[in-house]
Amino acid sequence: MVQSISVGLLGLGTVGSGVVKIIENHQDRLMHQVGCPVKIKKIVVKDVNKDRDVKIDASVLTTNVDDVINDPDIDVIIEVMGGVDETRSHILDALRNKKNIVTANKDLMALYGSELLTVAAQNGCDIFYEASVAGGIPILRSLVDGLASDRITKMMGIVNGTTNFILTKMNKFGSPYDEVLAEAQQLGYAEADPTADVEGLDAARKMAILATLGFSMNIDLEDVSVKGITDITEEDLQYSKQLGYTMKLVGLANRSGDRVEVSVQPTLLPESHPLSSVNDEYNAVYVYGEAVGETMFYGPGAGSLPTATAVVSDLVGVMKNMRLGINGNSFITPQYDKQLKAASEILSKYFLRIHVKDQVGAFAKITGLFTARDVSFEKILQLPLKESDLAEIVLVTHHASLQDYEQILQQLRDLDVIYEVKSSYRIEGESV
Amino acid sequence: MVQSISVGLLGLGTVGSGVVKIIENHQDRLMHQVGCPVKIKKIVVKDVNKDRDVKIDASVLTTNVDDVINDPDIDVIIEVMGGVDETRSHILDALRNKKNIVTANKDLMALYGSELLTVAAQNGCDIFYEASVAGGIPILRSLVDGLASDRITKMMGIVNGTTNFILTKMNKFGSPYDEVLAEAQQLGYAEADPTADVEGLDAARKMAILATLGFSMNIDLEDVSVKGITDITEEDLQYSKQLGYTMKLVGLANRSGDRVEVSVQPTLLPESHPLSSVNDEYNAVYVYGEAVGETMFYGPGAGSLPTATAVVSDLVGVMKNMRLGINGNSFITPQYDKQLKAASEILSKYFLRIHVKDQVGAFAKITGLFTARDVSFEKILQLPLKESDLAEIVLVTHHASLQDYEQILQQLRDLDVIYEVKSSYRIEGESV
Repeated sequence: MVQSISVGLLGLGTVGSGVVKIIENHQDRLMHQVGCPVKIKKIVVKDVNKDRDVKIDASVLTTNVDDVINDPDIDVIIEVMGGVDETRSHILDALRNKKNIVTANKDLMALYGSELLTVAAQNGCDIFYEASVAGGIPILRSLVDGLASDRITKMMGIVNGTTNFILTKMNKFGSPYDEVLAEAQQLGYAEADPTADVEGLDAARKMAILATLGFSMNIDLEDVSVKGITDITEEDLQYSKQLGYTMKLVGLANRSGDRVEVSVQPTLLPESHPLSSVNDEYNAVYVYGEAVGETMFYGPGAGSLPTATAVVSDLVGVMKNMRLGINGNSFITPQYDKQLKAASEILSKYFLRIHVKDQVGAFAKITGLFTARDVSFEKILQLPLKESDLAEIVLVTHHASLQDYEQILQQLRDLDVIYEVKSSYRIEGESV
Repeated sequence: MVQSISVGLLGLGTVGSGVVKIIENHQDRLMHQVGCPVKIKKIVVKDVNKDRDVKIDASVLTTNVDDVINDPDIDVIIEVMGGVDETRSHILDALRNKKNIVTANKDLMALYGSELLTVAAQNGCDIFYEASVAGGIPILRSLVDGLASDRITKMMGIVNGTTNFILTKMNKFGSPYDEVLAEAQQLGYAEADPTADVEGLDAARKMAILATLGFSMNIDLEDVSVKGITDITEEDLQYSKQLGYTMKLVGLANRSGDRVEVSVQPTLLPESHPLSSVNDEYNAVYVYGEAVGETMFYGPGAGSLPTATAVVSDLVGVMKNMRLGINGNSFITPQYDKQLKAASEILSKYFLRIHVKDQVGAFAKITGLFTARDVSFEKILQLPLKESDLAEIVLVTHHASLQDYEQILQQLRDLDVIYEVKSSYRIEGESV
């Protein structure tokens, strides 16, 4: 019988402080679940003298990673320091020292998850990473356990709180992107350098992790096609609304037969779609399984305590496994080889907004390009542009392949009657 | 190493057929997860000659329960026959024969869950029952594992698809209850005898199960106060909408300090609340945890394949535990003794609709009763009633204790200026 469990932390930032608070405040609950006390033995920090909003005995802090990964008393290491290369090397060392790992590091898991999971299994250790995707939402467990018997064919995720906050405000108040981004930065919802969030990279990492688990197939970060939200204008949002859609930054993972597509991009969803009402900094993952049908998991995608909840729940999982002596058994090798869809197999509806010269026959030239590739329209809006001799045309297509659509876009740009292709978005969430 | 796993089914109705289909169609996926073939060895049915929409070899069917619970080759029994007393006795026998159990039976688990879990643990067996609450939504696992480290203080569930379908239609089309119920019965969303659904009993059973797990406290069915949807009128729905609320049958489990309240009743939710957009036959469970904040789990609450997904995912859990030799370890004794809130501790806002005689001073008499108990109003509507000398008054109160509110209601009914108290609903989902 395990007498007590010692935990080491790598990092004591936002999430790390939350972990310390939860372990302290919920000690009786953890004790009841695990059957023994849980103690934080060492925490690696950059500066032991820094002021912090959690009370920690000075003797617990260290600047030396080896004090944690080489301490024979430490059973579980919680990695909340972030970073990729150096962190990977620390975790590999720790696994080889038979330490179980809980991590919140999406960058690391998206890039090196497969390697780390393999090394963990080889060493009889758990590596859990629920907190790496969608903060407080237990989505990874739900994919692996709750929907274990089903065949998942589609996942759509609002998995980045910063961009969802920005799009919600732009949509609600009609404010321009730059203004809302500045507000988000002031409120702490966006970082000083927001690139990873607004360019969709953060969401792409999470989608690689989700797709790997949901499809039981090793999806690499480079397999995810990515487009961010920086080009979205107030006009795009207005037209979306008018046409009955809500614009969201959607991570999409789609399977047809054995072939998959994973992407992140601004996407129009029907207003009635469950993801459309996910607002502000909240996250949600919509999952479609062949047997279960539509499910959705909603909650806070970031923040100190929500993310720490996921970390400490993983810690409980590791500790229950320790009590039963079964660490290192939760990893299941992906069942399928990766097969990515070709552009000709990716089907979707599209929203397209263009500025056109006011010439006889312009509209026919434009629609002709679509007709030539058998793509028809669901909705068409044409309006004169104020103080200009241009017209604005908004088209909503029926389903087209990505290949056809991109070729049409290319031809449109070359067309003499086109002044500018203003914007183009995928439409998802309707049945094919 | 386990060579193959034999499963016995009690029952082959809607859910049972779904289970057979999923086990057959996903054999390679199950094999990959569990590491050995999964075989359905025996199925207990009432009539072996009945026509069914799943193909089953006649030799697999039996009418004798003993053929399953006494078969030494059978490792796991899936109970999808329903019923309480006889089923309980079968499951107790099976557990004593060291069979692991997966059940979708909410009536059984709400009434005898505690006994069955104890006997299972004593016999080193698992008993899993994810399918008993909210069909395809993996909510029980999320409470026990995903949110393991948190202290859950509130759960609100739309956990009955029939009533949610009826309320959605009434709300959308302004149709009366009886008409929509008849439509729901025709479509198969409501049973010929809809009592258990429309009177809230089905939801109450699920809330007893959710509250027991979420609060780690044995909540019995009789602890759940229950009110159904049969008295809801089109007028109530219209006023709700006008005031910015959506009417739902909400199962509420609330904890303050160590004391809890569990109830099922028609409830007004702010339109912006995540549960308000859960429509038609869908279910959802909103969970509030001290650390994680707001989360919500959404999906199909019933149906053959969704419910069977939960059953077979539980089966996968049992089989993984068999492989590791750890069956019988998942049950955790409730941590807390049951302490129910007194009526004086249950705080809520209320919606009240009354018909009042058109007399001088009537309104002052009515509001005086509230003021005497320190209950104030957030909103007041007064309208003359057509073709009558009565006025209709709709009041939305600020927070009041259930004790005060019920005493006010009693006094209102006795008041000479009151013609009739038409309806009264709790309002939830706003911060206290």
